[in-house]
Amino acid sequence: MSTIVSPSVAADDYLRVRQFSDLLCAPIGPEDATAQSMPEASPLKWHLAHTTWFFETFLLRRDDHYRSPFPEYEYLFNSYYNSVGKQFPRPQRGLVTRPTLDETYAYREYVDGRVADAIAAGLLERDPAAAAVLVLGLNHEQQHQELMLTDLKHLLSHNPLEPAYRADQFQPATPADRDQWLTFPAALYETGHIGDEFAYDNESPRHRVWLEEFQLAKHPVTCGEFLEFIAADGYSRPEFWLSEGWATVQRECWTAPLYWTQHGDDWSEFTLAGRQPVDPHRPVCHVSYFEADAFARWSGARLPTESQWEVAAAAQIPTGNFVDALLAADEPVHPAGGVRDEGPARRLFGDVWEWTASSYAAYPGYQPAPGALGEYNGKFMNGQYVLRGGAAITPVGHVRPTYRNFFPPHARWMFGGLRLAR
Amino acid sequence: MSTIVSPSVAADDYLRVRQFSDLLCAPIGPEDATAQSMPEASPLKWHLAHTTWFFETFLLRRDDHYRSPFPEYEYLFNSYYNSVGKQFPRPQRGLVTRPTLDETYAYREYVDGRVADAIAAGLLERDPAAAAVLVLGLNHEQQHQELMLTDLKHLLSHNPLEPAYRADQFQPATPADRDQWLTFPAALYETGHIGDEFAYDNESPRHRVWLEEFQLAKHPVTCGEFLEFIAADGYSRPEFWLSEGWATVQRECWTAPLYWTQHGDDWSEFTLAGRQPVDPHRPVCHVSYFEADAFARWSGARLPTESQWEVAAAAQIPTGNFVDALLAADEPVHPAGGVRDEGPARRLFGDVWEWTASSYAAYPGYQPAPGALGEYNGKFMNGQYVLRGGAAITPVGHVRPTYRNFFPPHARWMFGGLRLAR
Amino acid sequence: MSTIVSPSVAADDYLRVRQFSDLLCAPIGPEDATAQSMPEASPLKWHLAHTTWFFETFLLRRDDHYRSPFPEYEYLFNSYYNSVGKQFPRPQRGLVTRPTLDETYAYREYVDGRVADAIAAGLLERDPAAAAVLVLGLNHEQQHQELMLTDLKHLLSHNPLEPAYRADQFQPATPADRDQWLTFPAALYETGHIGDEFAYDNESPRHRVWLEEFQLAKHPVTCGEFLEFIAADGYSRPEFWLSEGWATVQRECWTAPLYWTQHGDDWSEFTLAGRQPVDPHRPVCHVSYFEADAFARWSGARLPTESQWEVAAAAQIPTGNFVDALLAADEPVHPAGGVRDEGPARRLFGDVWEWTASSYAAYPGYQPAPGALGEYNGKFMNGQYVLRGGAAITPVGHVRPTYRNFFPPHARWMFGGLRLAR
Amino acid sequence: MSTIVSPSVAADDYLRVRQFSDLLCAPIGPEDATAQSMPEASPLKWHLAHTTWFFETFLLRRDDHYRSPFPEYEYLFNSYYNSVGKQFPRPQRGLVTRPTLDETYAYREYVDGRVADAIAAGLLERDPAAAAVLVLGLNHEQQHQELMLTDLKHLLSHNPLEPAYRADQFQPATPADRDQWLTFPAALYETGHIGDEFAYDNESPRHRVWLEEFQLAKHPVTCGEFLEFIAADGYSRPEFWLSEGWATVQRECWTAPLYWTQHGDDWSEFTLAGRQPVDPHRPVCHVSYFEADAFARWSGARLPTESQWEVAAAAQIPTGNFVDALLAADEPVHPAGGVRDEGPARRLFGDVWEWTASSYAAYPGYQPAPGALGEYNGKFMNGQYVLRGGAAITPVGHVRPTYRNFFPPHARWMFGGLRLAR
Repeated sequence: MSTIVSPSVAADDYLRVRQFSDLLCAPIGPEDATAQSMPEASPLKWHLAHTTWFFETFLLRRDDHYRSPFPEYEYLFNSYYNSVGKQFPRPQRGLVTRPTLDETYAYREYVDGRVADAIAAGLLERDPAAAAVLVLGLNHEQQHQELMLTDLKHLLSHNPLEPAYRADQFQPATPADRDQWLTFPAALYETGHIGDEFAYDNESPRHRVWLEEFQLAKHPVTCGEFLEFIAADGYSRPEFWLSEGWATVQRECWTAPLYWTQHGDDWSEFTLAGRQPVDPHRPVCHVSYFEADAFARWSGARLPTESQWEVAAAAQIPTGNFVDALLAADEPVHPAGGVRDEGPARRLFGDVWEWTASSYAAYPGYQPAPGALGEYNGKFMNGQYVLRGGAAITPVGHVRPTYRNFFPPHARWMFGGLRLAR
Repeated sequence: MSTIVSPSVAADDYLRVRQFSDLLCAPIGPEDATAQSMPEASPLKWHLAHTTWFFETFLLRRDDHYRSPFPEYEYLFNSYYNSVGKQFPRPQRGLVTRPTLDETYAYREYVDGRVADAIAAGLLERDPAAAAVLVLGLNHEQQHQELMLTDLKHLLSHNPLEPAYRADQFQPATPADRDQWLTFPAALYETGHIGDEFAYDNESPRHRVWLEEFQLAKHPVTCGEFLEFIAADGYSRPEFWLSEGWATVQRECWTAPLYWTQHGDDWSEFTLAGRQPVDPHRPVCHVSYFEADAFARWSGARLPTESQWEVAAAAQIPTGNFVDALLAADEPVHPAGGVRDEGPARRLFGDVWEWTASSYAAYPGYQPAPGALGEYNGKFMNGQYVLRGGAAITPVGHVRPTYRNFFPPHARWMFGGLRLAR
Repeated sequence: MSTIVSPSVAADDYLRVRQFSDLLCAPIGPEDATAQSMPEASPLKWHLAHTTWFFETFLLRRDDHYRSPFPEYEYLFNSYYNSVGKQFPRPQRGLVTRPTLDETYAYREYVDGRVADAIAAGLLERDPAAAAVLVLGLNHEQQHQELMLTDLKHLLSHNPLEPAYRADQFQPATPADRDQWLTFPAALYETGHIGDEFAYDNESPRHRVWLEEFQLAKHPVTCGEFLEFIAADGYSRPEFWLSEGWATVQRECWTAPLYWTQHGDDWSEFTLAGRQPVDPHRPVCHVSYFEADAFARWSGARLPTESQWEVAAAAQIPTGNFVDALLAADEPVHPAGGVRDEGPARRLFGDVWEWTASSYAAYPGYQPAPGALGEYNGKFMNGQYVLRGGAAITPVGHVRPTYRNFFPPHARWMFGGLRLAR
Repeated sequence: MSTIVSPSVAADDYLRVRQFSDLLCAPIGPEDATAQSMPEASPLKWHLAHTTWFFETFLLRRDDHYRSPFPEYEYLFNSYYNSVGKQFPRPQRGLVTRPTLDETYAYREYVDGRVADAIAAGLLERDPAAAAVLVLGLNHEQQHQELMLTDLKHLLSHNPLEPAYRADQFQPATPADRDQWLTFPAALYETGHIGDEFAYDNESPRHRVWLEEFQLAKHPVTCGEFLEFIAADGYSRPEFWLSEGWATVQRECWTAPLYWTQHGDDWSEFTLAGRQPVDPHRPVCHVSYFEADAFARWSGARLPTESQWEVAAAAQIPTGNFVDALLAADEPVHPAGGVRDEGPARRLFGDVWEWTASSYAAYPGYQPAPGALGEYNGKFMNGQYVLRGGAAITPVGHVRPTYRNFFPPHARWMFGGLRLAR
């Protein structure tokens, strides 16, 4: 996080990122913004408040004279920072009906004003750590922008009325060529963050890793390919599954990706644009690590490690189907596949987060950031797998080749897909 | 339910009761109206919709030509009527963010219009069963009016901001004389509903019951008396408790009635008017059957049976602290005790529902109503105890001397108190 | 418990009852005696130790000079007596592998010797309360004899090998005449214990109760009759069930009484003599209150109240199919029905405990016994229904017309059946 | 598993390993052998039967004419092999009281006889795959020998009588020098199994791995060092813990390693020789990954990766405190530390399994064994961490430098300790 920030750029970035949250939430009323569909998801209203709390807590409170007009929010909107204080129980976030949505927007406005004042008063020049916090806070907000849509989709899916976030039209996706592979030679590679741009602490330090020769598929697995796995009874054959995955399949009665429903021979899926037919040419999404791994085993392939994925993505500019582009084009906020913004021969970014075979762990020599912000990444380093590349709900500019997302292996509500390796 | 209804009275009653729901909900915005604090409680918005569903399902659908503009609500707002169809899972009512609060009010308006049309078109004269359903539906709505405030209080109590439903002022209550008893001789009494006025099926048939001589306290147990029980370590002495009650005390770490908090020597309680000091002269409220029973045993007394309570209340007009009167007087919606509207020497109605020692069971010769409406009462006749008399959140006119409320013995979120017998 | 006991009779009774426990357990080896199939059931070894603990704690420890060679058993084998001290957690009784079965028998032998010594030394003459404890302890042991077989059956049923307790031969039962009813007039009856013989505190005080005219079936419901309920889809029609019963049916996937299995058109049941065909003429057994109540509603009848049952049984000597008689006749320890030991026109005792419609509650004026023994009955007076009459695993002499057994409404592992009333 | 086995050696090995199970179980009676203390642990009797089932299923059933006299054991003692058939539910193994312990020994004797016959009849020469199964089965049995003691300890610890497996005497351990480190240079290393000796499929293929320079402590962390962590409030400071670890500490109320108890200033621990004082010079044991990781962070160090551990152990003969040696020396079956059988400067084997920082995952190019035996390792590759080196309950000869044990991060009942790296 040794990022150099020019104050005027910082102020612009701040406005741009914060306003994008407002833009994302514009279609959402107080009822949709209040409810919490499960402990792992949070209400939209909470996301709007918590991202604001982050700036208030870590930026404004650097000034010892700062007095918040909302002192009880310090407790209420702390997500998991033990060093800041106790936290309101996560599974009960849907019960915090106050502040209302309007009051939450007012809280945002208040903090935005104070942050603008502080920047104008030279905080960032005076206090380089504050500049780093600002950048971290913006990246943090972008993560939550992604979660807003992810969590909202999960909430809306529980309503038999199947309401849409936006009523966009689906167009058939263009087919991708199957079974095309990129080959990488055995070598001692370097992975991890390098340079002055912002990156999370978990992307460092840059380090060497030996990889044997490997191949990576040119495109993510599609819905059509996944339907073949279903047709081959993939969900009822334990030999493809990890033991815990198989237990989950049976306990949760999984027979398809999350949000998919079968009527006769037709499959449809609930999307942010309401219920839609499953499009065989779009990347499959909302599969757990267990399903991704089982699919790969059934295919005679495997998932790539995160090192392999990163080597393939090295030095690429992340372009692809991100949320900004989809909204701008009035397209559904949904994995599209196809050729938009394609990088040179590889569609590694956007559309779906790609499960890797790598458990989320510290890089050799990893050091968490000091203080409360050190609770950002390191303490989640168990029981999770790394996903790479960003998805259709990710803001452009948020991901990098070295970016590490992570979720537990049973999680399906985020936009997780997969790419094969061998 | 062989009630004779004049159509014009019916139309007036309908309007009056329905509008009272609107009045109760007027201070509540969409956020507060959406959330569900536990499976046993329901969102305000759901109460508003479900009571409307009742009239649509059981009154409007009597007309085979009726076509609802909201066909999916039939499933969505069915509470527990198996003979009507499947039900949306109760614990997920807080996830049904649509219809919004405004859409819910529109649904009410639509149904109210159609009911008014039907009455004007002579439905009640033509179809006496429809008249009975109308009356049942109004009593049903009154029950839900009570639950709206009960459930809302529970929801608001989870918010560390402790928001109030209404910001009423608390005045100190007047002390009641302690240890005054009414005595009733041994005799063969009659209890149960008699006459043409509306009553639920579970209040019938009227039947004979032999009671030995007994005494009933003149007033409900007060907060001050209950504080003595707490001071006597009542919550940590198993000898006062039923076995399952004692297990509950330990598992749930109960040390006082629900909503009570101790700071130093002071006790306060969360109320619909926000946090307030515990007033020793008000009736104690939000105690479970287990606590009521333990308090009675510690006192050397016991709880009355429902027959004893009913004999004491027989032929009395229910007056007391009900929600209409409290709102009209700008007093807090909270048990007040004292002398308002006191019946001749007995304060049996209003303030708090009084736990009785009687399990909720069928009277000899009980017959549930035929059809779906027969699911109203009989199928809940196990695992619950009877409470009598109505409370500060009950609409006046809803209770009778024969009225039987019922809750499981661990329930505390409704306004349950107690009166001693011996 | 104001029973007058002659010491020599007491010593004889003591030996007889204690030895019957040994007789019941004789076929059981250490493995079967150790395991616990669910929290509600206990290992045989625990029953053998706990009944001994009862005599040591409440009889031998009356002597202040008594020093137990097994001081740690005071904690280990206390079932639920809070006033004696803390209790080892009930769900973990199967983990107490020591004392071994042999050591447990040695504990029994030691305590039996000391009790015999105390009786010989005149304890019972000197200390009338001790005499009462002795009688209570023997009744307590008889209850546990019944539980030994009940719990053992439940344990053995979990083993796919389906081992038998005893390999007795089943003979076809004799058919009973259906639809025969006894009629009782409306009157003010007296129920509850009277006289000097032993009875539990919950059978007192004797009290008056008004009953309207009622009819009681002459025999318990048979397996054949219950098969008709199954064939009529009784387990899939919610209209017959209490709400909580219906939820239980669906959650637990009940389709028949516990231990019953269907293969094609044939039904068999697991018994203490291994798997056997369901005999249509034997009384149905191992049904919950929910099933008994649903069957009664389907039949157009209802369950009797415990008062009604007791009025019918009043002044009868309890004879019928009890465990002693079945063992003596080398017949299976299983409800037989038929004509053995039939009382005058009523088969009210033995075979199956009969569910009544009455919640288990205190009689008017009930006073628990003082001290620790007061924890015997009263503290269980919620959430349970009364059963009457004894069953095929009950020792003869243990039940009376006034005897009140009780279980929660979902319980099926004890020998519960039903008799209709109307 | 391409091991070449001489039949006479195989027969000898078979006898030796099988008889060692009998030796381990000799002090255990039927009660101790029957109970199951938690779903993750199994009864001793089950271990004895399941290891026998393994030989019957995978060796004897290779002969199509083989007919088992115990056909129902195929289902009853299948642990998790889906391709063999359904499995008896693991959490209920303690309810399988039959076969009895004696019958289980008879089953062992029967299968041992048939295996001996088959070897004598030339099975291993005729069928090289059978020879591989035999060797696998013996390694499988050694794993279960370790689990027998591990699970038995857990069971006995639940009994307030705290019975001992063997009444051995504890001697004070010799202090180890603290803060001694071995240094390894950065290099491209090879790890994984090589050669003809038996190894599990998860130890292959041998592969290259780049390691930066690292240091490994010369000895495992001792109880004394762990007491310093406790004294430093290690269990109440979230900054040392993974997020899920911290949640576990609070939910489970962990304040010390499993089996440790504090009385005043003294710490004792339950061992296979009963309760003993905590010896500061013995290696700490029964800590979870969460505790190991928190201790390491508190120390300013970290856990080694499994590659680092294996590089340090490469080419060493595993000697140390294993169960055979401890039993032979009449020493407690407990981590001893000290200098027995010390390898050249490193105490890497025996005493305690050492947690590594590595999630249990497939080596690059990993292929599970074909058929049912392929279910042995690969399907458990998620949610677990690798432990290395063997422990005081491991049979000598069972572990290797490449041996990979694995457990979930919260597990504490196996003999898990740790060694620091940096």
